Amino acid sequence: MRHLLGIEDLSRAQIEALLDRASGYLAALSGGAALGADLSGRVVVNLFYEASTRTRTSFEIAEKRLGAEVVNVSPQTSSVVKGETLLDTVRNLDAMRPFAFVIRHAASGATRFVADPVRASVVNAGDGQHQHPTQALLDALTMRAHKGRIEGLVVAICGDIAHSRVARSNALLLRKLGATVRLAAPRTLLPPSMGAAFDCEVFERIEPALDGADVVMMLRIQKERLVGAGVPSPGEYARTFGLDERRLALARPDAVVMHPGPMNRGVEIGYRVADGPRSVILEQVEAGVAVRAAVLASLSA
Amino acid sequence: MRHLLGIEDLSRAQIEALLDRASGYLAALSGGAALGADLSGRVVVNLFYEASTRTRTSFEIAEKRLGAEVVNVSPQTSSVVKGETLLDTVRNLDAMRPFAFVIRHAASGATRFVADPVRASVVNAGDGQHQHPTQALLDALTMRAHKGRIEGLVVAICGDIAHSRVARSNALLLRKLGATVRLAAPRTLLPPSMGAAFDCEVFERIEPALDGADVVMMLRIQKERLVGAGVPSPGEYARTFGLDERRLALARPDAVVMHPGPMNRGVEIGYRVADGPRSVILEQVEAGVAVRAAVLASLSA
Amino acid sequence: MRHLLGIEDLSRAQIEALLDRASGYLAALSGGAALGADLSGRVVVNLFYEASTRTRTSFEIAEKRLGAEVVNVSPQTSSVVKGETLLDTVRNLDAMRPFAFVIRHAASGATRFVADPVRASVVNAGDGQHQHPTQALLDALTMRAHKGRIEGLVVAICGDIAHSRVARSNALLLRKLGATVRLAAPRTLLPPSMGAAFDCEVFERIEPALDGADVVMMLRIQKERLVGAGVPSPGEYARTFGLDERRLALARPDAVVMHPGPMNRGVEIGYRVADGPRSVILEQVEAGVAVRAAVLASLSA
Repeated sequence: MRHLLGIEDLSRAQIEALLDRASGYLAALSGGAALGADLSGRVVVNLFYEASTRTRTSFEIAEKRLGAEVVNVSPQTSSVVKGETLLDTVRNLDAMRPFAFVIRHAASGATRFVADPVRASVVNAGDGQHQHPTQALLDALTMRAHKGRIEGLVVAICGDIAHSRVARSNALLLRKLGATVRLAAPRTLLPPSMGAAFDCEVFERIEPALDGADVVMMLRIQKERLVGAGVPSPGEYARTFGLDERRLALARPDAVVMHPGPMNRGVEIGYRVADGPRSVILEQVEAGVAVRAAVLASLSA
Repeated sequence: MRHLLGIEDLSRAQIEALLDRASGYLAALSGGAALGADLSGRVVVNLFYEASTRTRTSFEIAEKRLGAEVVNVSPQTSSVVKGETLLDTVRNLDAMRPFAFVIRHAASGATRFVADPVRASVVNAGDGQHQHPTQALLDALTMRAHKGRIEGLVVAICGDIAHSRVARSNALLLRKLGATVRLAAPRTLLPPSMGAAFDCEVFERIEPALDGADVVMMLRIQKERLVGAGVPSPGEYARTFGLDERRLALARPDAVVMHPGPMNRGVEIGYRVADGPRSVILEQVEAGVAVRAAVLASLSA
Repeated sequence: MRHLLGIEDLSRAQIEALLDRASGYLAALSGGAALGADLSGRVVVNLFYEASTRTRTSFEIAEKRLGAEVVNVSPQTSSVVKGETLLDTVRNLDAMRPFAFVIRHAASGATRFVADPVRASVVNAGDGQHQHPTQALLDALTMRAHKGRIEGLVVAICGDIAHSRVARSNALLLRKLGATVRLAAPRTLLPPSMGAAFDCEVFERIEPALDGADVVMMLRIQKERLVGAGVPSPGEYARTFGLDERRLALARPDAVVMHPGPMNRGVEIGYRVADGPRSVILEQVEAGVAVRAAVLASLSA
């Protein structure tokens, strides 16, 4: 694997191989053991054009646990302020002979755009509303750990589908692995073409999407998008689309609750559900380090 | 020791053990030797919600000299901007299985609040006006290096006592080790209850506090606080509460001058005193790396 | 070599020794090999008061490839905001016993000012309009790689000479090594004394400077400086002083094109020249890591 730009590039066999490798790392991480030295002597550049705690830190920990030398570049302290193009910035950094770039950028397609001209490997850490492939992989790893399989699961992805790279990456991956995917969103946040494009069922209300689901994945709603979406307020959103205990009871009794974070507690997810016995939200975070390590160790730049 | 949240949690014996360990590191540092590999393969997250050069860098150097993998998270580049709670941020990072957090936060009590729910160890690097325990330890190490003991010393802490976590941590530690502590501040910057609460003598003028002191510790005065404190200007503060050579002559002839930094030269401390033969201000900084290494190496997460 | 503050401190023999060492590193970098462990167990502090991607990252990669422990300090997250003097900041960091500082600062002469009082070595990564010595060394390494020598080359440096530390460092180094240096700039961006002071030919138009040149080095023009310089617009600058293919034809057929970056494409350099067969701009970046490693490995703090 030279790059990881989107789930669309991965075969089912490749996805399963990455998940198997990540499972091994997950056990090592929780036991405090090292992850090996696959990246020893190699430089990884984390190039984050968007603010991020969890994803950047998760990659950084994965890189360091594999022995890499890590360099963080963020727009705040970079010559991006001087108006250099993204491609020139990446080409310049590439000339310093890193092993890989991990890139987050606000523009959909940004990572694919720069991947071709560079010598190093490129990992997409989220590009606009397009893809966030390691998120989908860590979600799959978490589901597999709890359900033993992906095939045949009913997964309800609920919230701001329109703007969500998490939803797009998950829908692609889950369909490839044989799960049923339900996308539920207020009408204004659900592009009409998504059902057909991603081979998913779509719902304009959350209740039927939850009915009998094995996995409930709630998406973050950004408050500034409520206005454009015609939802009057966060409180209104919580009442119509938030996951509380009453709604969660519609899913299967052993359903797990996921959220990519950061959560808006009291908006898309209730406090008690977030901290409740069916929440696997912190396990997702732990799986994130393992999955990113598996991706990085699988790159052959 | 699972966490280091405040001096109040440490016994006299624990403090002395930390100072002994730090003394060994201090000799190694100045001789250029390594500090060992106690943290090899372990991840330490420095989570700084307030700007800091000296404290963050001091911890980072201590961590790296002990072989740790270091991850820096600062609010400027984090999803803190997205409104996630402190507890959710820390819990999420904790799920990535770090060995320890070093946390600075503007809210008094913030580090104790998050320490209980996490698996990792937590070190308080300054929380609001509450505590800055490694500062008190490095100050004690510096005093011991110069005076051979803490017991029986007369230590004058002078300046903005009201807002100072440095003063609170030092008062607690020095009383535990048997020093006499004098707190001197303009009346508006000296909470009336502090003398009794911390078992210290209090002074509204600096001169009697300096009289016969073994150690003079000047605190930073933040200019924006002068207004609220009823002090007309930095110049006025310097004339009434600044440490110049004339005032320093009131202390013992072998008294040492300390300051936690960063200094406002010409305000709370004169240029000649800051750079004079009795200033041990840079030795405090050097002691800081040794003390932080001792704390980190003593954690048993 | 205790510090590297400016090209003026280096003899021709020292420059050539640094270039020879860097040549070896360059081969190792492009072959993926390690650069050794000369800085193993040593702390290097990158103290950047000005935004920089390329220079800071280049130093950081060089440091890490030599085994150093790297600490980045930038004004955004430092107590510089609290008004501490540069000298106090550096002295404090020096008390933490780093091996070396790499400093970028907006004030000309800043690095020389702080070098004397500290124990650590200081490397100038750009100080105001004064010097950027590692840039001149990496430019020389790139020229030598392509031309086999520096002596006797005709080098045209074109653009905003007045504000350029790159031009000053290059002029000094190239004259020491026996090249002919031509400085070309709009009259308002060319200090009258520079020709004599740096023993260079000066030109107020770009065409005669390019005539028969072996090396064409274009400088970045900052748009905000055009106003003060009496140049109406970036387009006007491009038409009168930009390097396009037609102008490049004035230089020798085997001339190489250089630029210190970041480029303003379409202003001082045309898109096709920047990406053309005679551009060695990305090779300069690669040489940068090698040169900085050579400098750091030559320090004897």
